[in-house]
Amino acid sequence: MVDIATRVYNHKWKIDPIVRSLIDTDFYKLLMCQSVFRNKPDTEVAFSLINRTTRIPLADLIDEGELREQLDHIRSLSLSRGESTWLRGNTFYGKRQMFRPDFMEWFENLRLPAYHLERRGDQYELTFEGSWPEVMLWEIPALAVLMELRGRAVLDGMGRFELQVLYAQAMTRVWEKIERLRDVEPLGIADFGTRRRHSFLWQDWCVQAMLEGLGKKFTGTSNCLIAMRREVEAIGTNAHELPMVYAALAQDDAALARAPYEVLSDWHEEHEGNLRIILPDTYGTQGFLDNAPDWLAGWTGIRIDSGDPATAARIAIDWWQSRGEDPKQKRVIFSDGLDVDKIIELSRQFAGETNVSFGWGTLLTNDFRGLVPDDALAPFSLVCKAVSANGHPTVKLSDNPEKAMGPADEIDRYKRVFGVGDQQRLEVLV
Amino acid sequence: MVDIATRVYNHKWKIDPIVRSLIDTDFYKLLMCQSVFRNKPDTEVAFSLINRTTRIPLADLIDEGELREQLDHIRSLSLSRGESTWLRGNTFYGKRQMFRPDFMEWFENLRLPAYHLERRGDQYELTFEGSWPEVMLWEIPALAVLMELRGRAVLDGMGRFELQVLYAQAMTRVWEKIERLRDVEPLGIADFGTRRRHSFLWQDWCVQAMLEGLGKKFTGTSNCLIAMRREVEAIGTNAHELPMVYAALAQDDAALARAPYEVLSDWHEEHEGNLRIILPDTYGTQGFLDNAPDWLAGWTGIRIDSGDPATAARIAIDWWQSRGEDPKQKRVIFSDGLDVDKIIELSRQFAGETNVSFGWGTLLTNDFRGLVPDDALAPFSLVCKAVSANGHPTVKLSDNPEKAMGPADEIDRYKRVFGVGDQQRLEVLV
Repeated sequence: MVDIATRVYNHKWKIDPIVRSLIDTDFYKLLMCQSVFRNKPDTEVAFSLINRTTRIPLADLIDEGELREQLDHIRSLSLSRGESTWLRGNTFYGKRQMFRPDFMEWFENLRLPAYHLERRGDQYELTFEGSWPEVMLWEIPALAVLMELRGRAVLDGMGRFELQVLYAQAMTRVWEKIERLRDVEPLGIADFGTRRRHSFLWQDWCVQAMLEGLGKKFTGTSNCLIAMRREVEAIGTNAHELPMVYAALAQDDAALARAPYEVLSDWHEEHEGNLRIILPDTYGTQGFLDNAPDWLAGWTGIRIDSGDPATAARIAIDWWQSRGEDPKQKRVIFSDGLDVDKIIELSRQFAGETNVSFGWGTLLTNDFRGLVPDDALAPFSLVCKAVSANGHPTVKLSDNPEKAMGPADEIDRYKRVFGVGDQQRLEVLV
Repeated sequence: MVDIATRVYNHKWKIDPIVRSLIDTDFYKLLMCQSVFRNKPDTEVAFSLINRTTRIPLADLIDEGELREQLDHIRSLSLSRGESTWLRGNTFYGKRQMFRPDFMEWFENLRLPAYHLERRGDQYELTFEGSWPEVMLWEIPALAVLMELRGRAVLDGMGRFELQVLYAQAMTRVWEKIERLRDVEPLGIADFGTRRRHSFLWQDWCVQAMLEGLGKKFTGTSNCLIAMRREVEAIGTNAHELPMVYAALAQDDAALARAPYEVLSDWHEEHEGNLRIILPDTYGTQGFLDNAPDWLAGWTGIRIDSGDPATAARIAIDWWQSRGEDPKQKRVIFSDGLDVDKIIELSRQFAGETNVSFGWGTLLTNDFRGLVPDDALAPFSLVCKAVSANGHPTVKLSDNPEKAMGPADEIDRYKRVFGVGDQQRLEVLV
């Protein structure tokens, strides 16, 4: 029986929005936003889209008009009453009122600022400029829109039945991955796949699959909207943009060397327990830990987001031991380009030595590799980063030079200040 | 948006019927029914359900009340106006008015006769007795009901999400099979999977997958209802029940030896072209062909339904050559326990020697092997056969003694009359 009313209603849509809520974003963005709102509210930043997989001609694949419609739709969004209630009333990481009233009031009145979109060759230049706490909230929805529009362009040419089989194949693949993870003991794994997901509905499906398939081993999702609707934990702490912007604001080399620790000092004041997670790789993990103040060794864990993950985890464990800390009481969170094989391998490798968790991203929520001709739905490496702060360019070194960004002379300066030498070059898939 | 009316309507169902139409059956049943209606209308037969996979305790798995409800529902069915129009007006195998007016009138007034159901240990005894043209129409729906009820009993314990993944896996499996068949050249393949299908909806899905995935290489379905709704060819000719009943009616050994040829003589009068397909294995392929009258060598093809298929095809090709016929002008139809590997192998083996077609059955429409614990959805070997005619037991020898049936002394007599010696024993999976 056709539900005529639903069908007519669907026909009335001007667009099919990709992002339908301001909290269809990563939880750590909101935590960082609150921190920025408190500590650096007047910073002017620019964020810019960077397609690291240049062989994907985004501007050829995605219609500019459709892209503008989606971005304009995001600018029309504001926090709904239910979303606000959830943010104000929910317990995050065991803490009530994680978001303070002044921040919530600001967030409730927020609309995302203007964007600048221009075609450059076969790529889009997409930039956002303005106050840091506002601009930073563009990152996740902008990435999700571009990823999904590229997917839609491919799906547009497929028949109804072909689509059904495509999703059946993708579902089977996700489920088989989950079944392999079921036997890993112990295991704690969260969805970190919002930014480069195939689509919102698909991410939502993946979260439900993890929930049903892994039970308590599934610790939650980074996506606030899905966390709210599916009643699972919202997961995430902080990201590279904090040290990148703090560093860009430094007046001299001495201030630059201090900047990454200042970020964590501000964080230390605001958060405790499982929210005290060090992200050490922005300017090289080894140097960052060698020069870290002792209070940082008391933090709960470290997130590994670039370079060889086992090497970085070993550095962290050695560092804790050198500071008189027991790695068995610590947590290592892996979050860089994970898939099942790597998750199982790392889990086995560090079992008994420390507590291990995983933030599983793109290869959870967008593994459509090999499912259509020319691999036209395979995920690729798209990022949206802070490129300047108060007029100064930002720099990221990372533990993998393939992930470095910033002007060449500034990269050299940062390498000198942070004592970064030769680095292992690793291919960046997603 | 929930369609409340649909949901309320669904809640009102007393049962969810498995068979909803008298033409949800194999096309060859209707062709044979018309032949029987014309040539042997007064024969009294008994059909009986036989579960050849005795380790599956059907009576423990399937509730007797539910089984009765489904069988009673089938007895309430009659030909709908649209179904009748389709049978009367459609072109089958290039021929209009395949079904004669007197047969159609009889069919339009038909209700299926009573059944006898009794539990025996962990199996059901299910028998149908009465006039041959009526009783024979029970075979396919009875099998489909038992197969689907067994599946429903397993699915009943599964969650909504688990079900979705199950069907995604099964869809992916079917689609991967179809993709492998896509490259086989030439190929002609039909769905023969009604009787042991997972469910009606699933068979319908498989047919659509074949249609979209194989295009013209998909020649049609044996299921009349699906052929009508999906506007594809209805496929099928005749089956073992004709020679089995004709043989049982034979008064002496000489008449018995003639019986299988009498069947085809009656068929010869009624049909031509692609409907003239010999099913030679009821009492041994080699002997049947050795003793066949010359006019039979003029028929279009042979269907191979037991024993080693390549061996039987070789026998057929040699036989045609010995009768001065060109095998390149003939057709060999394989229909026994096929899956993709075997289809590709046979297709390659006989390419250029003769025309090859495939009737793909249970492993198209019910390949749920390995998808649930204890393999509880794996198909098994369930048949519903004519066991007596006018009080005489029927016998089938087949080219595989695992498929033989009938009283032991009668089997010995038939073997003597038809000159069947040692036979290769092959496992019957489905």
